[in-house]
Amino acid sequence: MAKKSPNPTKMTYYFGKTKTDGSARDKALLGGKGANLAEMTSIGLPVPPGFTITTEVCDLYYKHGRKLPPGLMDEVQQQIATLEKETGKKFGDPERPLLLSVRSGAAVSMPGMMNTVLNLGLNAKTVAAMAAIARKQGEVAERFVYDSYRRLINMYGDVVVGVDHEHFEEAFSKIKKKYRVKLDTEVPLKGMIELCKEYEKVYQKHHGKPFPQDPMQQLELAAEAVFKSWMQMRAVKYRQVEGITGLLGTAVNVQTMVFGNMGDDCGSGVGFTRDPATGQNKFYGEFLINAQGEDVVSGIRTPLPAAEMATWNREAYKQLLKIKDTLENHYRDMQDIEFTIEKGTLYMLQTRTGKRTGAAAVKIACDMVQEKLITEKEAVARVPAGDLTQLLLPSFATVAKNAAEIIARGLPASPGAASGKLAFTADEVVVRTRAGEKVLLVRKETSPEDIEGMHLAAGILTSTGGMTSHAAVVARGWGRCCVAGAGEIRIDEKGRNIHVGGKVFTHEDILSIDGTTGEVMVGEVATQPPRLSGDFARLMKWADKYRTLKIRTNADSPDDAKRARDFGAQGIGLTRTEHMFFEGDRIMAMREMILATNEKDRRIALKKLLPLQRRDFIGIFKAMHGLPVTIRLLDPPLHEFLPQDAKSQKEMADRLGTTPKAVKDRVDALHEANPMLGHRGCRLAVTYPEILDMQVTAITEAVIACKKKEIDAQAEIMIPLVGTAAELKMLSDRVRATIEDVQKAKKFTGKLNILVGTMIEIPRAALTADQIGQEADFFSFGTNDLTQMTFGFSRDDINTFLPDYLKHELLPRDPFQTLDRSGVGQLVEMGVRKGRETKKNLKCGICGEHGGDPSSIMFCHEVGLDYVSCSPYRVPVARLAAAQAALLCSKA
Amino acid sequence: MAKKSPNPTKMTYYFGKTKTDGSARDKALLGGKGANLAEMTSIGLPVPPGFTITTEVCDLYYKHGRKLPPGLMDEVQQQIATLEKETGKKFGDPERPLLLSVRSGAAVSMPGMMNTVLNLGLNAKTVAAMAAIARKQGEVAERFVYDSYRRLINMYGDVVVGVDHEHFEEAFSKIKKKYRVKLDTEVPLKGMIELCKEYEKVYQKHHGKPFPQDPMQQLELAAEAVFKSWMQMRAVKYRQVEGITGLLGTAVNVQTMVFGNMGDDCGSGVGFTRDPATGQNKFYGEFLINAQGEDVVSGIRTPLPAAEMATWNREAYKQLLKIKDTLENHYRDMQDIEFTIEKGTLYMLQTRTGKRTGAAAVKIACDMVQEKLITEKEAVARVPAGDLTQLLLPSFATVAKNAAEIIARGLPASPGAASGKLAFTADEVVVRTRAGEKVLLVRKETSPEDIEGMHLAAGILTSTGGMTSHAAVVARGWGRCCVAGAGEIRIDEKGRNIHVGGKVFTHEDILSIDGTTGEVMVGEVATQPPRLSGDFARLMKWADKYRTLKIRTNADSPDDAKRARDFGAQGIGLTRTEHMFFEGDRIMAMREMILATNEKDRRIALKKLLPLQRRDFIGIFKAMHGLPVTIRLLDPPLHEFLPQDAKSQKEMADRLGTTPKAVKDRVDALHEANPMLGHRGCRLAVTYPEILDMQVTAITEAVIACKKKEIDAQAEIMIPLVGTAAELKMLSDRVRATIEDVQKAKKFTGKLNILVGTMIEIPRAALTADQIGQEADFFSFGTNDLTQMTFGFSRDDINTFLPDYLKHELLPRDPFQTLDRSGVGQLVEMGVRKGRETKKNLKCGICGEHGGDPSSIMFCHEVGLDYVSCSPYRVPVARLAAAQAALLCSKA
Repeated sequence: MAKKSPNPTKMTYYFGKTKTDGSARDKALLGGKGANLAEMTSIGLPVPPGFTITTEVCDLYYKHGRKLPPGLMDEVQQQIATLEKETGKKFGDPERPLLLSVRSGAAVSMPGMMNTVLNLGLNAKTVAAMAAIARKQGEVAERFVYDSYRRLINMYGDVVVGVDHEHFEEAFSKIKKKYRVKLDTEVPLKGMIELCKEYEKVYQKHHGKPFPQDPMQQLELAAEAVFKSWMQMRAVKYRQVEGITGLLGTAVNVQTMVFGNMGDDCGSGVGFTRDPATGQNKFYGEFLINAQGEDVVSGIRTPLPAAEMATWNREAYKQLLKIKDTLENHYRDMQDIEFTIEKGTLYMLQTRTGKRTGAAAVKIACDMVQEKLITEKEAVARVPAGDLTQLLLPSFATVAKNAAEIIARGLPASPGAASGKLAFTADEVVVRTRAGEKVLLVRKETSPEDIEGMHLAAGILTSTGGMTSHAAVVARGWGRCCVAGAGEIRIDEKGRNIHVGGKVFTHEDILSIDGTTGEVMVGEVATQPPRLSGDFARLMKWADKYRTLKIRTNADSPDDAKRARDFGAQGIGLTRTEHMFFEGDRIMAMREMILATNEKDRRIALKKLLPLQRRDFIGIFKAMHGLPVTIRLLDPPLHEFLPQDAKSQKEMADRLGTTPKAVKDRVDALHEANPMLGHRGCRLAVTYPEILDMQVTAITEAVIACKKKEIDAQAEIMIPLVGTAAELKMLSDRVRATIEDVQKAKKFTGKLNILVGTMIEIPRAALTADQIGQEADFFSFGTNDLTQMTFGFSRDDINTFLPDYLKHELLPRDPFQTLDRSGVGQLVEMGVRKGRETKKNLKCGICGEHGGDPSSIMFCHEVGLDYVSCSPYRVPVARLAAAQAALLCSKA
Repeated sequence: MAKKSPNPTKMTYYFGKTKTDGSARDKALLGGKGANLAEMTSIGLPVPPGFTITTEVCDLYYKHGRKLPPGLMDEVQQQIATLEKETGKKFGDPERPLLLSVRSGAAVSMPGMMNTVLNLGLNAKTVAAMAAIARKQGEVAERFVYDSYRRLINMYGDVVVGVDHEHFEEAFSKIKKKYRVKLDTEVPLKGMIELCKEYEKVYQKHHGKPFPQDPMQQLELAAEAVFKSWMQMRAVKYRQVEGITGLLGTAVNVQTMVFGNMGDDCGSGVGFTRDPATGQNKFYGEFLINAQGEDVVSGIRTPLPAAEMATWNREAYKQLLKIKDTLENHYRDMQDIEFTIEKGTLYMLQTRTGKRTGAAAVKIACDMVQEKLITEKEAVARVPAGDLTQLLLPSFATVAKNAAEIIARGLPASPGAASGKLAFTADEVVVRTRAGEKVLLVRKETSPEDIEGMHLAAGILTSTGGMTSHAAVVARGWGRCCVAGAGEIRIDEKGRNIHVGGKVFTHEDILSIDGTTGEVMVGEVATQPPRLSGDFARLMKWADKYRTLKIRTNADSPDDAKRARDFGAQGIGLTRTEHMFFEGDRIMAMREMILATNEKDRRIALKKLLPLQRRDFIGIFKAMHGLPVTIRLLDPPLHEFLPQDAKSQKEMADRLGTTPKAVKDRVDALHEANPMLGHRGCRLAVTYPEILDMQVTAITEAVIACKKKEIDAQAEIMIPLVGTAAELKMLSDRVRATIEDVQKAKKFTGKLNILVGTMIEIPRAALTADQIGQEADFFSFGTNDLTQMTFGFSRDDINTFLPDYLKHELLPRDPFQTLDRSGVGQLVEMGVRKGRETKKNLKCGICGEHGGDPSSIMFCHEVGLDYVSCSPYRVPVARLAAAQAALLCSKA
């Protein structure tokens, strides 16, 4: 990500009529906001002039122990001189003061995560002079000057020197009390003047020094505050959650102030060039009259739909729609814009690629192909593969929803259906979800501090804020269901309940929210599977055209298999047989087998399981008629099948006609210090070959039964946890001999074509894949276990240190979610290469959970796997990601 | 090991005056016994002629589903024809019957592990005819014919067709009762004739078929029985214990019978050309008059010293001594021989390289260099490095021994000192040692079935048998302490006690045995460190001359460090700091640290540990003055420092002034599903960097304190469990910064030269060693953990399946004892190579337990490690093994 500046000494980039140094290509250096301000300026849009301090300066700031690099402020001074010339104003001048905003902006958008300071350049002197001039225009204008100044002190105090916002609030309350008014806007000019004095006092009291009067000093400290905010906890957490790494830091955008709050001919707004929730091609904006941009996105006031702008300022609205078209044609993608109208004149403050739901991404991509704005390949490449899961999410079932009691309606901020108990703070969400509860986060409005809780919650419900509020934007980005601005709801955070329509719901009550309609309902409403649009099918067809990887699924039942097949799965890459042993009474036969002390008794118990397993396999073969089905032999350690508590042990003993002590003794004997590295996988088959015999018999009999009914069963038997060629030789010999025996016993003369392969999930298996390949018809990389052993990370225990690892960037991301290329990937690559040295066309696939992760699928494509296997709902994701991988590789 | 025969169709090799097909070089094909019989014949020694069926035939036997290959018996018939010509006797002839013995013999000696059948060729007809001839020489001669026949039926019945020995014993008892005699030898001729009839009946009754009268059929089935014995449980177990793999099978030696039991001018004996216990250069033999060889080694009768042969048959004795010299000069090594005297004529039945104690191996090697029989290099190459540990074993402390009550004296069968409770069967030893007890195996005599128990016992005590009895030979081979033939002791196996000198000792009593003197003492007698001979020093000097690997030691205390230095250690490769935290009151400070909920409280607790750690390090630096000391930072998971049971938790809570619940909560919070893959090693330093700070401060302060006192402290700080370069970068930066801080704080201006390196013990670390190498001054391969993770084997849990793995030869041996070259070794090789790609001269060593294992040391030499580190007592082993590796590699 981090591109070097061509001129390493250049620390600031100007944008304005005089000159524009940067462009949209300079995101790494100028951040997204800075690069696009330059770009918009270049293409002639009305952007207040300014300059950007580069991300490299942020990097230097941290490298030099949090010190601004020497020479920076000299360069800043020069840029300000240019600005002064262009605007005819002067920084710190009492007559025509140049006022500046300072905003952060990294290469990747992190909405609301970092600091902003507005109105820099005001001080007691300029305020007095400006007020004198404004007085001629009336009290409203004069009051605005003082209002701007108190905002500066407040924001600067809060953001730059860390004076708590509530101290300022307190002072404000006193003034309001004094003037017996309720709203901020009702405080008269006199009160506003007093308030400025009070704010200066608050500042001095809590910071120890007076509010800085030197505008350059204000600017320097404000820029530094932006750099500092890069490493604030909330920003660090956001990057973790989003998996953002490799950035140098944030840029600082210093820009001439324009005011949306100078009166009723002013306003601020934000918008999307298309609907970010559905993708519909119509301008989707919101605005507030007499307000700054922050007021729109913070959710404090609920904004008006953009269409209403037409009645307020027709010209500005027409201009805005034209700019919208210009931007879409220029960027060839949906844009997220910010604008301000100062005394009737429109200014553009930001444009960036707009976040959108998965459904919107699909629709926009397909529409833009139709509009000839982009090509098919671009459409395939552009839709984030992971976001497709949102389209596959269930919605509320019509019948259930019709019966549900609707208690409130909010904005459909992020589609989906979610139910859960009510949690009132982000921290509460964290604690309760970790304890296994499903909760909705219910807040008046969300703020960047809530990130972690928002991520973990089943859904988000706010009582204020619009479609572009913090909650809505963040939730949409993640595909988390969100209903925003449900104003009928009154939230009592302390009392941990909500009041709505005369009813009270506590933290123990369950509500359901519909992010597609904005409805809030009582209780847990039943859901139904998603219905997929024609655009979805179109995109999938394009994806299938370009991908070379086959996509299989991990499925343990006929239902799962069928669902995955409907989603486009081309076979099963992993059927876990152990789940089958838990169903109904089977667990008892399984336990009987485990309690047996000799082979004979084990065989008796296994005989009971045989017909059940056979039936399972027939069902799966039917569902996958004509497609390969990889069945993994028993994998988990036996103790997982036994009850651990005394009561259940007693029950089991009674059922099996033995003593609780006998059960407990067996449980104790099976206890392991590190079960992950213990007696499991093929090690079970080595010590208890009769289990393998039973499973292979069941599979072979099932294949024969299918073939007799013209069902094309394509079984692949997979031996797990193999570490040496000798293991695989012994066991695959046994499997093949058993298949032959069954075939003879059943007098079946047709071809069975059952493959026998192995998982590569132990580092040693990858290292010796040339030897292991001699015994295997196929390899399937079990990257879950391979990651555990390659890193020495127990997946069950990693949470004690993983957060610290992500914080310190010791790991770019959770290696169980995205395959670690340089370590685990090296073993996968080695396994494939060595395996194919032995058998040129050895079929290789992956069945770890990485098989559904787009970035890992990219890797699988690169190392030449034949297929990836993932959970049914990830199949479309994998199809798209595989196509993206193929397109990217063919480009490179 | 398995060399192919040059002529694949040749299945039998003749040895005799007519011709000799094989030689000592054909061990793989003919087994050790067969090859040496051929060799002895070739050099003109008196060997009864015969032939050997090759080990390849054994291999074919198993490959063809336990069937003798076609054509074998035709070849056998031809060889017998040659034998008949040479001896003038005829197989199955009633007048001059050729009698044959059939003995096993693999390429590696497995004493007593496989089957033997003697006197083949006898049947009702030949016996009758022979008896008629013998009758002329008197009743003794006639009786001998019948005695031989009943021995054949018994042995054949037992070994070939599986009729239980006790059925024959029963018949014998009846006859003895009938003739009112006690000893077998007292049964008169008439009784013997009856006994033969009875034995034929017993055979038929329990086998269902009559005893085979056709000699060729006898021979065929006997040969097959030998092949079968190759896979008998006891033989398989023996190979496991001894780590014998890669053999084709056993050969079968068919040889003309000679009889040591035809009268008082006959006898059998065994001997060593030098003393196998001490290595003294004098013939060390034992013999029995009128006995077969089996009688000498089985321990049933206690034999006479060979020197007494001189008075019985001076000529034969002189001839034997001459043969002894011939054999030593020919083989240039100490030999273990078997001989028989039939009617005054000496026959050699076997020679092989003699097993010896470590001390004997050293002395013999040094003596033979002096005698110019072998070179220095040969001496170094010849002594099994692992056997040196025997020389380093403690002996009983003189004072303690003088005070001890001696209750019996036996033969000093295998040197050493052992104490333990009494166990009366091998199975009992297995059960009790697994339960953590230290036991002595006490048996009348041991047999091959006892192998596993003998291996696990602290020592072995028998009441019958000589220096060459089964117990003595096996114990010496392993360096296990053994006192044999302590005849005063009466063992009551059922009552689980022994009677001696009017006293009774039960299975709960402790005895001590001195394998160097043969004394048996009451109670646990204190031991003292070993005193090493001049020969030992000489051998070590030669070894140091040829080796290139440096040898370090793993030591956690000044005492251990000093001891290892005395043994020749050239530094410490691993100091585990965690052990230091358990001493005395330190554990409380450690626990306080773990219970702390914030960094500040942790730092307070750590402050208490700092001076104690510093003192530890100063002590170790002093002991290792001038040599490098590698200190590993805290490695184990924190829960290992907390008490797990309620009572101890209460105590701890009281001591630390908190509640038992608080302690229990912390213990629960620290619980991990797979602690081996959990929050430990450098992961602790990432989450609790203050622990690292304390340890590094203690080390640095200790180095400074030493330097001030002219002690040359060479510290190397080692960061454990590193898996990514980022981890090592973060932590090594912190270590280096801390060292600098301490140096500044202490105002020390000298050079500290503290190295900072890492363990390579996670597969990922080896895979990315090029990146990790950038941050490390050295690598130390932690092959214990590396083996765990590369195989996915938990060392704590492996016992549930390892026995099956060894049985099926899925693993050649326990990979925690001997490094797995093709898997783990591949990672080590990769780690060294990649690390040195980054830093050409990167110092690389190993500190896993493999560092003391000769075969693993060979590997370490091959991959170019700079040093191995092992426990203090393994240092001499490692020095010798390193030299052997260097010699072998320079040869290749």
